[in-house]
Amino acid sequence: MRIKELFINNFRNYKSLHIKPKENLNIFIGDNAQGKTNILEAICFLLQGRSFRTSHEKEIINFDSEQSKLKTELKAYNQNYSIDISLSRTKPKIIKINNSTTSKPELATNFGTIVFTPDQLSIIKGSPKERRRFLDLELASFYPQYKYYFVNYQKVLLQRNNLLKELKEKKQADTFDLLELWDNQLISYGAKILMARMEILKKLIPMAQQIHNQITSDKEKLTIRYRSSLNLNSNFREELIYDQFREVILKNRQQDYLKGQTTVGPHRDDLVFLINNKNITDFGSQGQQRTIILTLKFAIINLWSCELNDVPVLLLDDVFFELDSKRQKYIFDLLNKDVQVFITSTGMANTEKNLINIKKNAIFNVRSGLVCEEEL
Amino acid sequence: MRIKELFINNFRNYKSLHIKPKENLNIFIGDNAQGKTNILEAICFLLQGRSFRTSHEKEIINFDSEQSKLKTELKAYNQNYSIDISLSRTKPKIIKINNSTTSKPELATNFGTIVFTPDQLSIIKGSPKERRRFLDLELASFYPQYKYYFVNYQKVLLQRNNLLKELKEKKQADTFDLLELWDNQLISYGAKILMARMEILKKLIPMAQQIHNQITSDKEKLTIRYRSSLNLNSNFREELIYDQFREVILKNRQQDYLKGQTTVGPHRDDLVFLINNKNITDFGSQGQQRTIILTLKFAIINLWSCELNDVPVLLLDDVFFELDSKRQKYIFDLLNKDVQVFITSTGMANTEKNLINIKKNAIFNVRSGLVCEEEL
Repeated sequence: MRIKELFINNFRNYKSLHIKPKENLNIFIGDNAQGKTNILEAICFLLQGRSFRTSHEKEIINFDSEQSKLKTELKAYNQNYSIDISLSRTKPKIIKINNSTTSKPELATNFGTIVFTPDQLSIIKGSPKERRRFLDLELASFYPQYKYYFVNYQKVLLQRNNLLKELKEKKQADTFDLLELWDNQLISYGAKILMARMEILKKLIPMAQQIHNQITSDKEKLTIRYRSSLNLNSNFREELIYDQFREVILKNRQQDYLKGQTTVGPHRDDLVFLINNKNITDFGSQGQQRTIILTLKFAIINLWSCELNDVPVLLLDDVFFELDSKRQKYIFDLLNKDVQVFITSTGMANTEKNLINIKKNAIFNVRSGLVCEEEL
Repeated sequence: MRIKELFINNFRNYKSLHIKPKENLNIFIGDNAQGKTNILEAICFLLQGRSFRTSHEKEIINFDSEQSKLKTELKAYNQNYSIDISLSRTKPKIIKINNSTTSKPELATNFGTIVFTPDQLSIIKGSPKERRRFLDLELASFYPQYKYYFVNYQKVLLQRNNLLKELKEKKQADTFDLLELWDNQLISYGAKILMARMEILKKLIPMAQQIHNQITSDKEKLTIRYRSSLNLNSNFREELIYDQFREVILKNRQQDYLKGQTTVGPHRDDLVFLINNKNITDFGSQGQQRTIILTLKFAIINLWSCELNDVPVLLLDDVFFELDSKRQKYIFDLLNKDVQVFITSTGMANTEKNLINIKKNAIFNVRSGLVCEEEL
């Protein structure tokens, strides 16, 4: 995917903006609070139909305006597309692909962007929930059915937990047959979720390890493990996962009853990241944590390229120039190949500017909602 | 407070380290994962008796060792002190001030350090709980009694909530007299907590506003409001707060009973940060959010200087050079006056190096646990 033109109207601090990004790196430099991140937010909005910063979309409309308009001309899957989005204070948002009205899910299925903001360090530092969320969100791009299984699993899980609480209140540990109905559904959706997670990780992990080796000059060995509440066999097949899930569900019924909740299943699993065999959540530095997130994002881009035959646009908000110069150099090399990237930063050292390829890269200076391309 | 010498032994990736920091700025430059943050962690450990990164203290001991030793020679309240801490895999930690064994709370009451890491952006971005935690932790330095009231308030709150749940389960909305006992205690501790928060904010807020004006060259007007679940009168006195708290507790009894929890009190209050009348959590940029946290930290240093007649050491982990150059310059000017600061970063531009005062500042290069002072 390549964004060729971007039009922003009454979006955050922008009254009106038109830019033509370059093929590879597009770097937005400016003081704090000038509107750098707003440009990335607009791109994400155009390609995913939503913001990565807020769910209150009315916040996004410029204070003095009633509505906001976004437009992009882009190339994806070797074809040209135009995407238009209108946001209004009073009416629902309108999304159009090539002038035909469409829905947010359809937009996100067709296009896509990978975002990395400082908040996403919570994938490493946060609770297992954050890591499952990362996995579930990224999976949706590769398995359109995943979201359906996921939503249904959550519904069944809630029903099962409610029943467990009810049984506990009435002290009916002997009437587990009532659980049978929910168990069957839970196991069925759960096995599909686990199967998809296993399949994606089987591809994603080796890619991530290879990229991480490059960025760290082979000095830091990355290991990623899926920590399951089931004894998942490496020889996974859907039927095996199904049987395995059934076995632990039955084994844990008494415990589930006592706790009033379902204690095993994909909703309890986690991802573990190790560098040189040490857990990165406990022992990693800020820079190592940033590097792993970036590695994961690159691996997903690789996966897109293998599975979907195109690559999404990469948005790096205020995270790139905080890496040391060696890591930056490797990443520039990786990026210069085939991805369109939008980076924000408060400044760029001369050593960093030397890495810029004039033909394919651009530096934009951002000041109070005005954007000027720098002469390179 | 001025750290004059620092000795680190078998702490994280340091086998043995001895440095003599300068009076004002001490900047630690190095690639990712070389041990920059570990130095700040050691300083915090020496002055607060705990880490700002982990509560699992055994993690901190170097992998090859059974124990870790930290030592500092410092000047505080115009006197010289030495602090020694020993950490062991098998024995409790030992803290000594001037060779006499002491406890963690006593250490933290006598000395102190202000820490700002990227994680602390959650004071702005996170839940009200994070902002209350910030307030409660910082208050403890100025009101030694605060912690006692706080701990007791939490205990009483838990008891009251348990009783509310019990009443709800037994459907006894008519027996509120049972609550009376807990209510009296809750109101009494709660009023003291609120009183202390009001008093500290009355001093802290104007200081923060003035500092923020300086950093942003008067372009961004900071407003900080205490959003209370009580109607706190600006003319607060402890008895008034007490009466006010009693009034809302009585008024909300029915609601508390229905929800099975206490819906008003200092445990439900929040701090609101506005820039030019817009809420910074929703509308602020990364840089603006960083600036506010830094402003708050400076304001607390000011407050120390007024109330306690000394200033704590300031630790800035990987947050300073992400601010734009204008903000950095103002902060350098502020810092060069009278505070000892330890800053980590992956690099420093020449423009930034020009701000360095050779006599009072030092740059240390950090590489794989080795630290060398740079010739300036």
